[in-house]
Amino acid sequence: MDESDINVRDTVMIFDTTLRDGEQSPGAALNVDEKVEIARVLEAMGVDIIEAGFPISSPGDFRAVQRISREIRGCTICGLTRANPKDIEVAAEALQDAACPRIHTGLGVSNVHIRHKLRTTREGALEMGLEAVKHAKKFVEDVQYYAEDAGRADPEYLYRVLEAVIAAGATAVNTPHTTGYTSPDEFGTLIRSIAENVPNIHRATISVHCHNDLGMATANTLAGVRNGARQAEVTINGIGERAGNTSLEEVVMALHTRRDLFGLETGINTRRIYPVSRLVSQLTGILVQPNKAIVGANAFAHSSGIHQDGVLKERTTYEIINPRDVGVPDSEIILSARSGRHGLHHRLAELGYTLDEGEFEKVYQRFLEVADKKKTVDTRDLEAIVADEVQTFFEETYHLEHVQVSCGNRSIPTATVRIQGPNGEVFCDASHGTGPVDAVYRAINRVIGEPNELIEFSVQAVTEGIDAVGRVTIRIQADEPVNGIERRVFSGHGADTDIVVASAKAYMFALNRLIDARREAAEWASANYK
Amino acid sequence: MDESDINVRDTVMIFDTTLRDGEQSPGAALNVDEKVEIARVLEAMGVDIIEAGFPISSPGDFRAVQRISREIRGCTICGLTRANPKDIEVAAEALQDAACPRIHTGLGVSNVHIRHKLRTTREGALEMGLEAVKHAKKFVEDVQYYAEDAGRADPEYLYRVLEAVIAAGATAVNTPHTTGYTSPDEFGTLIRSIAENVPNIHRATISVHCHNDLGMATANTLAGVRNGARQAEVTINGIGERAGNTSLEEVVMALHTRRDLFGLETGINTRRIYPVSRLVSQLTGILVQPNKAIVGANAFAHSSGIHQDGVLKERTTYEIINPRDVGVPDSEIILSARSGRHGLHHRLAELGYTLDEGEFEKVYQRFLEVADKKKTVDTRDLEAIVADEVQTFFEETYHLEHVQVSCGNRSIPTATVRIQGPNGEVFCDASHGTGPVDAVYRAINRVIGEPNELIEFSVQAVTEGIDAVGRVTIRIQADEPVNGIERRVFSGHGADTDIVVASAKAYMFALNRLIDARREAAEWASANYK
Repeated sequence: MDESDINVRDTVMIFDTTLRDGEQSPGAALNVDEKVEIARVLEAMGVDIIEAGFPISSPGDFRAVQRISREIRGCTICGLTRANPKDIEVAAEALQDAACPRIHTGLGVSNVHIRHKLRTTREGALEMGLEAVKHAKKFVEDVQYYAEDAGRADPEYLYRVLEAVIAAGATAVNTPHTTGYTSPDEFGTLIRSIAENVPNIHRATISVHCHNDLGMATANTLAGVRNGARQAEVTINGIGERAGNTSLEEVVMALHTRRDLFGLETGINTRRIYPVSRLVSQLTGILVQPNKAIVGANAFAHSSGIHQDGVLKERTTYEIINPRDVGVPDSEIILSARSGRHGLHHRLAELGYTLDEGEFEKVYQRFLEVADKKKTVDTRDLEAIVADEVQTFFEETYHLEHVQVSCGNRSIPTATVRIQGPNGEVFCDASHGTGPVDAVYRAINRVIGEPNELIEFSVQAVTEGIDAVGRVTIRIQADEPVNGIERRVFSGHGADTDIVVASAKAYMFALNRLIDARREAAEWASANYK
Repeated sequence: MDESDINVRDTVMIFDTTLRDGEQSPGAALNVDEKVEIARVLEAMGVDIIEAGFPISSPGDFRAVQRISREIRGCTICGLTRANPKDIEVAAEALQDAACPRIHTGLGVSNVHIRHKLRTTREGALEMGLEAVKHAKKFVEDVQYYAEDAGRADPEYLYRVLEAVIAAGATAVNTPHTTGYTSPDEFGTLIRSIAENVPNIHRATISVHCHNDLGMATANTLAGVRNGARQAEVTINGIGERAGNTSLEEVVMALHTRRDLFGLETGINTRRIYPVSRLVSQLTGILVQPNKAIVGANAFAHSSGIHQDGVLKERTTYEIINPRDVGVPDSEIILSARSGRHGLHHRLAELGYTLDEGEFEKVYQRFLEVADKKKTVDTRDLEAIVADEVQTFFEETYHLEHVQVSCGNRSIPTATVRIQGPNGEVFCDASHGTGPVDAVYRAINRVIGEPNELIEFSVQAVTEGIDAVGRVTIRIQADEPVNGIERRVFSGHGADTDIVVASAKAYMFALNRLIDARREAAEWASANYK
C-alpha cells in the first residue's frame, strides 16, 4: 500500500442508515416528509452518506430516496438493493437526481446463506454478485457491496468475492454482521484479514455495520476502524431491529474524545448530536432510556456524594465530554409570558431552530398558552411546542376542536369530542370507555371510523413540576392494509398540560398520518409507480 | 502459576452492584424492604456476590446491608467503604450476621486522585490502603480492594499497591474505571499487565468494574475477562450514574452464547434475567428502552421483510438467543374472568411468582376487576397487578378511597379525592389544576400536606389495545430533608385502565414511601444509630 491508499486516510466516513436499517425498528415507520426532514438534519450535522431507503421495497421507500436525492445535495445518497437487475434499476431511478448517488448491493457469503437463503452454489452466488455490481455501474459511479454474514463465511471465498467485486468497480465493501454476537477481537481480526488478504482492497473503502444484540456494536465498529475500516454504518440513538444498530453518537464521540488512541477524525459537528437525537426519537416514537450513553437524560448527571466531591475538586477527575459539546442545551434558561416575541425568537435561534414567520407565529401562540398555565417555560417545553406546531410532516385531514372528559375510580369514564372534517363540516360525538383515554379514542373513532388498534401508549412529563407539560407518544396499527402493507404502524405525539388532551392530540396525529398515507398510496397508484 | 491458580478458573464470578452503584442513578433511591427484595431475586438468579450498599453513607444503607446480611444466605454480601477505620468498622457491623461477608475498600492510585482528591503522596496513599486492608481483615476474611482510576496511574505504582494489599490479605482486586472512556484493547491490556506484573496475583481474584459513557462497558468487561479477570461487577439493566454500569444481562449472555470463544461459565440461571430486569425497572422507576440488548421490548422482534424471510427459512441464520432462555414469558397465554382462581394460580406459578394466600387473594380480586373492564388479561397485565398488589414494600399511611375528575381543552380540570388517614379518619377535598393529574395531585396535597415537587412522570400502556392497563411511574422530590438527605427522591407507580386513577395511585405510592422513610428515620434516630 502506498500513501494514497484509502485505508490509511485519517478520516472515518459516517454512513447513516437511520432511514433504512433504523426504520426497521418495530413501529418506527416514517413518512416521506419525515424522512426528508431527518435527512436534512443529518446533512447539517455533517454525515457523509445517507442510506435513504430500499427503493424496491415500497413506494414510500422509493419516494423517500427520490425526494432526498433531489433535496439533500451535501451528502452522498445511497439506496439499498438485493443483487438482481430489477432492484438495481429501481434504485437507480430513485437516485437519478442525486448530486452523489450510491447503489448498495450485495448478497450472503456464508454457506448457510448461500444454501438456505439463496439456494445456489458459491460460484453461482459470486456470479450473481458480480453481475449486480456491473449492472449498478451502468447507472452510478459509486457502488457499495455487502457480503452478508461474512463472519461465518469461508475466509478464502470471502476474499475472492471482495477482490472480484472491487475489480468490477465497487468503491466500498461491507461485511455486515446480521446478528450482533461477535466480539471486538473477532471482528477486528476479520476486518484486518480483509485489509491484508484482498489484493486490491486499497481501491475501496472498508465499511463496518454492526448490530447490538450483546451490547457490543460500538466496540465492534471501533475495532473495525482500528483494523482498517474507514466507513462506519450507524443510526441515531442506535435504533434498528431487535437491540438495534451501532449508535452514531457513541462512535463519533469515542473517536472525538479518544483522538489520542484512534488518531481519526469524522466530519460530524458534534453540537448537532443532541438535537438530532431528540428529533429522531420524536418522529419515530422510540424513547431513549435515561442511562443511554451520550444522549440519555442522565448521561451527564452525577448523584453519588463521592463523585460529586471529586467533580468539585478537579473537573477532569471524572468528566471528559462536556454536555455542550454534544449540544445538550443549557436547561437553566427559562422564559415567561413577559419574555415576549423577541425573547422567544432569540431563545429558539439559540436552540438551533430556523422557523419561517408563519411557523414562528404558531409557536408563539402556543407559547403564550403554556406560559399562561405554567409560570415558566423552559427548553424542553419549547422543544415540545415546536414538535407539535412545526415538526408535523403530513396533511391534517381531521382537526380536533374540543374534548371534554369525566372519569374516576367509581364513575364511568365518558368523553365528548368535536372534530372538524376535511370539508369544514363539524362532527360531535361521545363515548364511555375503560378510562378517559379509551373514552376519548372511542368518541374520535365514532367520528372518523378508521379501524385500527392502539399498540403502544406512553406519556412523559417534559419538564419537572406538578404543572408540567405532558408529552404523549402512541402507536396505532391499521386494521386494513395501507399501500399493500399489512398491519402498518403509525406513531403520533401530542403535548399539553392536560394529559387527556395530549392523548387526544396524539391520536389525531397518528390517525391523520394514517389517512395521509392512504391518500399518498392512492396518488402513487394513479401515477403508475413502477 | 500452577493449576490451582484462581485466575485460570473457568468460572466468572458475578458481582452485582445494582444496590450500591446502580442505586446512584439519579432518582433510583430504594428503601430497605425494596433492596431486600432485589437481593432475594439476585440470590435466586445465582449471583455470587451482592454489593448491598455503602454502610457509612446513610442509615438506610446501613440497615439494607444489615438486613440483607441476615436474610440472604446463599451469596457473599459485600459493603463498600473508603480507606479509613470508621468506614470499615461501620461496614463490619452491618455485615456482622452475614454467612459470607466481604468488605470492599480502597482508594485512588492515579496522580490526579492522590494529589487533588486525597491530597497526599503516593507513599501516603499506599500506607492508607494497606492500613485499610489490615483493619478490614480484623473483621472479615474476605476483603476486596479497589485501586480507583488505575487506567491513569503509573503502572509500576499500581503493581506495587496491588502486590502490597494482596500480601496484606486482599482476596479480590479491582481497578474500576470511574469514567467509561477506555477502549476494550486498552482495558484488556491493563488487566493483562496486572495479571503478568503483580507477583502474588494468583492469590486474589481480578475483578473488573466498567462504566458505559461511550457504550463500551460490556466489551470492556469481556476484554478484562479474556485477559485474566474472573469477577465482573455489573448491574441489572446497566443502571448507574450517567450512562450507567455494565449490564449483567449482556455480560452473562455474551459468556453464555459465546462459550466457544470465552470458554467460561457463570452461575447465573439465565431464565431469571427477564423477571429480575422487570422488577428492578419497576422498583427504581428507570425504564428500559425498546432497543436495549437482551431485556428491551424489541430485543427479539424482527420487522424487515428480508430478515423475516431468513428467519423462516433457517432459524439459525439470524437468531442465537432464544427469548425463553432469558425468561421472556410466552405472551400468547391470556386469561379471562372465566379462568377462575385455579387458572390464575397456575399462570402465576408459571411466571415464577410465589404468593402467600393473602397476597393471592388480593391479586385475584384485582384480576377480576381488570377482567371485567377488558375482555382478556395477559402476562403483562398480570405483572402490573402483582407489582401493585404485592410488590409494595412500605407501610401505607394514607389510602386513596375515591377519585373523580373532569377536564378538557376548554374546561378547567377539577378533581375530588377521598382519602383514609392513619387513624381511620376520612378526608375529602377538591382542587383545580392545569390538567387532570395536576388537579388530582393538588387535591391530594390539600389532604396530606407533605411538601414535594414532581420531577418525573411517565405512563406506559402495559398491553396492546385501546382498553389497555396504563402503568404510571412518577418521581417526587421532598422539599424538607428526609433522614438528613436533602432533595431525597421517591418513585411511585400505579396501574389502572384509567390513567388518571393510575396517576393518583402512583402519587399515593410515592407519598406513602416518603412518609414511611420519615418514620423509619425517626425510629433509627431514637434507636441511636451509630
